Amino acid sequence: MTEIILPNDTNMLGNLLGGRLMHFIDLTGAMAAYRHARTHVVTASMDHIDFIQPVRLGDLLTLKSSVNRAFSRSMEVGVKVWAENTRTGAVAHVASAYLVFVAVDEHGRLQAVPRLQPETPDEIRRYEDALRRREHREREKARRKEARRMTAEMNGGSAS
Amino acid sequence: MTEIILPNDTNMLGNLLGGRLMHFIDLTGAMAAYRHARTHVVTASMDHIDFIQPVRLGDLLTLKSSVNRAFSRSMEVGVKVWAENTRTGAVAHVASAYLVFVAVDEHGRLQAVPRLQPETPDEIRRYEDALRRREHREREKARRKEARRMTAEMNGGSAS
Amino acid sequence: MTEIILPNDTNMLGNLLGGRLMHFIDLTGAMAAYRHARTHVVTASMDHIDFIQPVRLGDLLTLKSSVNRAFSRSMEVGVKVWAENTRTGAVAHVASAYLVFVAVDEHGRLQAVPRLQPETPDEIRRYEDALRRREHREREKARRKEARRMTAEMNGGSAS
Amino acid sequence: MTEIILPNDTNMLGNLLGGRLMHFIDLTGAMAAYRHARTHVVTASMDHIDFIQPVRLGDLLTLKSSVNRAFSRSMEVGVKVWAENTRTGAVAHVASAYLVFVAVDEHGRLQAVPRLQPETPDEIRRYEDALRRREHREREKARRKEARRMTAEMNGGSAS
Amino acid sequence: MTEIILPNDTNMLGNLLGGRLMHFIDLTGAMAAYRHARTHVVTASMDHIDFIQPVRLGDLLTLKSSVNRAFSRSMEVGVKVWAENTRTGAVAHVASAYLVFVAVDEHGRLQAVPRLQPETPDEIRRYEDALRRREHREREKARRKEARRMTAEMNGGSAS
Amino acid sequence: MTEIILPNDTNMLGNLLGGRLMHFIDLTGAMAAYRHARTHVVTASMDHIDFIQPVRLGDLLTLKSSVNRAFSRSMEVGVKVWAENTRTGAVAHVASAYLVFVAVDEHGRLQAVPRLQPETPDEIRRYEDALRRREHREREKARRKEARRMTAEMNGGSAS
Repeated sequence: MTEIILPNDTNMLGNLLGGRLMHFIDLTGAMAAYRHARTHVVTASMDHIDFIQPVRLGDLLTLKSSVNRAFSRSMEVGVKVWAENTRTGAVAHVASAYLVFVAVDEHGRLQAVPRLQPETPDEIRRYEDALRRREHREREKARRKEARRMTAEMNGGSAS
Repeated sequence: MTEIILPNDTNMLGNLLGGRLMHFIDLTGAMAAYRHARTHVVTASMDHIDFIQPVRLGDLLTLKSSVNRAFSRSMEVGVKVWAENTRTGAVAHVASAYLVFVAVDEHGRLQAVPRLQPETPDEIRRYEDALRRREHREREKARRKEARRMTAEMNGGSAS
Repeated sequence: MTEIILPNDTNMLGNLLGGRLMHFIDLTGAMAAYRHARTHVVTASMDHIDFIQPVRLGDLLTLKSSVNRAFSRSMEVGVKVWAENTRTGAVAHVASAYLVFVAVDEHGRLQAVPRLQPETPDEIRRYEDALRRREHREREKARRKEARRMTAEMNGGSAS
Repeated sequence: MTEIILPNDTNMLGNLLGGRLMHFIDLTGAMAAYRHARTHVVTASMDHIDFIQPVRLGDLLTLKSSVNRAFSRSMEVGVKVWAENTRTGAVAHVASAYLVFVAVDEHGRLQAVPRLQPETPDEIRRYEDALRRREHREREKARRKEARRMTAEMNGGSAS
Repeated sequence: MTEIILPNDTNMLGNLLGGRLMHFIDLTGAMAAYRHARTHVVTASMDHIDFIQPVRLGDLLTLKSSVNRAFSRSMEVGVKVWAENTRTGAVAHVASAYLVFVAVDEHGRLQAVPRLQPETPDEIRRYEDALRRREHREREKARRKEARRMTAEMNGGSAS
Repeated sequence: MTEIILPNDTNMLGNLLGGRLMHFIDLTGAMAAYRHARTHVVTASMDHIDFIQPVRLGDLLTLKSSVNRAFSRSMEVGVKVWAENTRTGAVAHVASAYLVFVAVDEHGRLQAVPRLQPETPDEIRRYEDALRRREHREREKARRKEARRMTAEMNGGSAS
């Protein structure tokens, strides 16, 4: 996916809004998930994302996505984003993101996802990294849950 | 911020797109950052986010944001999101997010951010949690960097 | 509802378009009506509105709405709008509006609206004012109808 | 101005949102004001508007505007709106509105507006009605101000 | 159809994007087709279009469309576009286009289109020109097909 | 460029609007032109385009563009468009277009465009075809001009 950054995508300084960029990332990620699962797909989560450098009004934004690994009913998709200055041709890496999509039918019920068979060395590396990230996500989820429990115990406050 | 979910915000199943939700989260987070820093602000990062349950066409989406802690030139902002079914009044928590915004002037140069003095027990808890999350972010950043370095060493491939 | 005023909301001078402001007012009013009636709602009328002062690109627009009084199948909703300069924090009242919404089912048929029981002094004042405004609306409607009738009699022209 | 009503203009019942209609009315009114004043223009007020009947997804919306009378620095513009069912050709009058626009220069300072010389009987009627509506607006403004003053005296509450 | 050119319609130089103009042309053309056929309509083709001169941010764009001739299941529609500078009142012809629309029912099946009986000399001229353009379109289609065939023969490449 | 077709891109039958498709084509064409010329670019013309088959809500639309030949101050760009059904994976060619873009500086003055040196057999074929199409465009321009002149002579009418 390549997009030209138009005025309504930007803030008052002429920089692409972070939320617009996340919207483009989610759409590009969904495309890869659609093509792998051939079902409806729903975004389940997105990992920590750094906005490495600003994207300017008029830049060409290029997003590439690939399914890194399929689990039983979900897929990890990686999205990488570059911005290109149309005048100079300079290209900068502006963000990378990992999203999990679940496959659903038209009533929103979870569906099975076909296995992904990685072939090239690059695909194999992504496939293995995806498993490590999944384990990391689950440890983090447990850690955040425990932190909320401890906080609730200490303060009686609502987690926000 | 409260939004009515209109047709262009949704996918073919009538669910709010994950990317649209992230866009609303970023805008709501920026509002809190504007109000604290009274400068231009730029999204620097967003932590891992789970989309807990789907938001439907026609729902009312309510987003609340607060600055949890100010660092020298950045702020951690928490955003919590609820969806309300307009017919039944049922309200569900659909997502929570932590974003870091940096303060910049009109040329994009970093600016100092005023200290935040937490007062209520809730504010104090958020203030302390924000520091822990910042330390966690920095450890994770180092961990990801190291993982990329090792991967590059082993494969000679580009990280994506 | 709080909105950041983005480029496509503004005219060539960087001022929020009056029509965009009326659109925000209508959406915010509908939210209060949805929450009171728990039905579909349709805008039936909006009273005279003054645009007290311009809203600028980049301002934060805050809109608050409340149901002032419920009639048998309709509600009067009041909406008040403020603009906040993100740099200085200065807040200005920019418009107030009264709208009437009717409650309908999914086929567009009129529905009964639950009574509203005002409690605080402020709610009681709004409740009583809403009745006066309704009577005023009906007198005005009769007056405009009579004016059109007289005009038609005198000129034979179409009213526009 | 003629518009085809597209999905994002409508609510969940497939009816044009009242706020979208007001946005179209404001744009169409501004066009007449631009053409008369040949300056920048800003919406100052809109009179009470009734939404006579719903407009449906897919309808053609036709809006006509004319400057009814020019005052020293402002103009009254009338806008009339019809909806046409594309399948049957049935046309219905859905709303009429009167707006006041002020003429400003590029710094937002008020500008003089050229006189309007009505010629046809229809133009003369509108010209005279516009003066009556202006007087009515000023009486109403005084009445609302007095009502707010009395309310404030009685309750000490904020007007909303 | 008259439109005010807003920021998101323009490129970084403040000129209306060619694609936005084609979008306005298609919508305006569809309106004439709807009004003639009283069915759903689908754009089948658009003839060569020249963008005669740029349209600027803030200009008023006026588009007029007419059905020039009805064939058994399709119609040729002509659209002419002018831009008006709101400050000076200068009007320029910016583009003219001929589109073919087909009439379909709600399942997308082709429908018969009523005959068009041209009456004024202008309508008669358009009616006759439309037949010539149709013949020209068919000759061109055959020519392009033949060119692709020859290219394929010579190169074995895919036509793009 | 790949796009997911969302509700506001479609008509009441759930088909992509022809004008939206032309808008995507123009943006994709501009990207190729930006990358070749490294200047601002403005759409000068688009050749006859056939909408070969409908694109449906939810389809993935893929657009590819290439500069076929550079002239002194303009470029011919070819754009080819495919639609993919996300459920079945079926891909259909839906349109092909040739556009001419001119290179301009920030004041809108024409700029020189670097030569294009075709290398692969495919590029050479496109390069040669582009010249033939340019000659064809100029003959057609002369033909249309002559047709308008004759029409004007015969009818005294305005060409539309």
